Amino acid sequence: MTMKINDTFLKAAWGERTDYVPVWYMRQAGRSQPEYRAIKEKYSLFEITHQPELCAYVTRLPVEQYNNDAAVLYKDIMTPLPAIGMDVEIKSGIGPVIDNPIQSYADVEKLGEINPEEDVPYVLDTIKLLTQEQLTVPLIGFTGAPFTLASYMIEGGPSKNYHKTKAFMYSEPKAWFVLMDKLGDMAISYVKAQIKAGASVIQIFDSWVGALNVEDYRYYIKPVMERIFSSLREENVPLIMFGVGASHLAKEWHDLPLDVVGLDWRLPIQEARAMGISKTVQGNLEPALLLAPWEVIEEKTKEILDQGMKQPGYIFNLGHGVFPEVKPETLKKLTAFVHEYSAEKLAK
Amino acid sequence: MTMKINDTFLKAAWGERTDYVPVWYMRQAGRSQPEYRAIKEKYSLFEITHQPELCAYVTRLPVEQYNNDAAVLYKDIMTPLPAIGMDVEIKSGIGPVIDNPIQSYADVEKLGEINPEEDVPYVLDTIKLLTQEQLTVPLIGFTGAPFTLASYMIEGGPSKNYHKTKAFMYSEPKAWFVLMDKLGDMAISYVKAQIKAGASVIQIFDSWVGALNVEDYRYYIKPVMERIFSSLREENVPLIMFGVGASHLAKEWHDLPLDVVGLDWRLPIQEARAMGISKTVQGNLEPALLLAPWEVIEEKTKEILDQGMKQPGYIFNLGHGVFPEVKPETLKKLTAFVHEYSAEKLAK
Repeated sequence: MTMKINDTFLKAAWGERTDYVPVWYMRQAGRSQPEYRAIKEKYSLFEITHQPELCAYVTRLPVEQYNNDAAVLYKDIMTPLPAIGMDVEIKSGIGPVIDNPIQSYADVEKLGEINPEEDVPYVLDTIKLLTQEQLTVPLIGFTGAPFTLASYMIEGGPSKNYHKTKAFMYSEPKAWFVLMDKLGDMAISYVKAQIKAGASVIQIFDSWVGALNVEDYRYYIKPVMERIFSSLREENVPLIMFGVGASHLAKEWHDLPLDVVGLDWRLPIQEARAMGISKTVQGNLEPALLLAPWEVIEEKTKEILDQGMKQPGYIFNLGHGVFPEVKPETLKKLTAFVHEYSAEKLAK
Repeated sequence: MTMKINDTFLKAAWGERTDYVPVWYMRQAGRSQPEYRAIKEKYSLFEITHQPELCAYVTRLPVEQYNNDAAVLYKDIMTPLPAIGMDVEIKSGIGPVIDNPIQSYADVEKLGEINPEEDVPYVLDTIKLLTQEQLTVPLIGFTGAPFTLASYMIEGGPSKNYHKTKAFMYSEPKAWFVLMDKLGDMAISYVKAQIKAGASVIQIFDSWVGALNVEDYRYYIKPVMERIFSSLREENVPLIMFGVGASHLAKEWHDLPLDVVGLDWRLPIQEARAMGISKTVQGNLEPALLLAPWEVIEEKTKEILDQGMKQPGYIFNLGHGVFPEVKPETLKKLTAFVHEYSAEKLAK
């Protein structure tokens, strides 16, 4: 079956002109949706992701309901970690918990490699189902980046300050770089398998890397990111980078061989442009605004769109994930507003 | 009794030349000290702060042990909140928990005023004891800023995203500004009483305000900060501002009527200077570095000192609080290193 795919999102990601500004929301599939919450009462996150039909349903639901221009595969950034030897459990109200955290060079050496077809077939089956049969918009595949994954692997769970991670990085640089290499290899294999299965755009989440200053980012992180993006470039799909609280690293990201710089809500688009970020940008409505009255949302959305549309290469999104308390009607209304407002402005 | 006070810290705060760079550490009194941990086994934080002798001991201990150039009053930013009607409890492993969070305009209206002499006499007694009898360095008094205090008061405890706080701010602007006014009044009364009791420098902690973008900061927060600092200026003691993850607000802080801009570890001092921050700066060693081998600490400290000493008006500190795992010997060695290295460079 061949379907006509809405390619507005891909064009914007490649920096081309579009008739309107494409929209998706980080965590669009998740706890803000009542249908998802009902499923979540019966199944854990890992149980959902292991059932391709169910996982595809969760993935495409918000696209159909909100008329968004891209779907994002429903899964956790922890998904590939068991394959390389980490005992991950997602605990309700806490997040990912790892029973065998990395504490030494020996622990790093023990980490295995991922073989996506064998280790995470359900991820690839979900992608095939969605892209071959169900979706009429591009599917965004994704992976966690080495720093962010390492932070869970070293801390043993979510952290506020990542100080164990940083202590390991500063104290055991040899082990750190081997760890980055291994997580870089994993990211590359995992993402290439997603692309082969049908994902037509990739977002790399380095959610917590903003905890590092730029000097440490350049020394401890940038080399592996350079390698990951260089390798993924061969696949010819747009590559998006995102992390929260990472405005001070946005210029570093722009320098990497990637296509889209994701911005959180703290770096105004016009400021990013003034800093020399000429690539496509994605973002960046303050996610808590979706809990405000509509007039406030509309006003701020207009400001962001006006900044974003100043040059081709702009994707609308929030500056971070959708909060559970956000009403689906609000997201639906927002997507319609972004489409209409931008179509009118871009037609001029 | 009149004691000779080491005024190097005050001179640096006022932007004057000093013979060496003065040092203090946020959370220098706390869980990184074995003597403190022993006390904490017997008493809660509130119990310690209610006993002036004990609280003074906890406050001065790190100054004596590390030879730091300022003491910082040991207490929590929650200390004044019960006085205005909030039921605060500090829960071990969680942080401050508030049983009656602010949810409406009516809740805001119910908040009372603080009368420091009646409501927190133990804070003032501790300050008097320290400054009239015990310390030979200046004592830093402090308060939480309205946004940060409001975040606990609205969320009911620590938060990752402050989205309830922001939702309240966006949805109930009238209630928000009354809340800011009341917390502004509280900060002013509380700090003025600390100064009257003997504190000779004040740090305002707006720990979490970096969660706001600059446009929201200007509209929702800056007016009350302007009022607080303008009122405190009458007291003629140096005023320091600090928050974490707030690099994008540093320029806004510089514009306020205050004396010292505190930087976290993500904004290099030379970049802050290039942005036009000409006032005294305080900071900003990555706090996790104190868990690294000494050579690494020394190298990074030199870099920061070299940047900080380029003009008068520089105070050495970490970019955030001391982690519990940091060894007292490390802090002692660091203070000595900063003193010696800077004295030598500044003598030239």
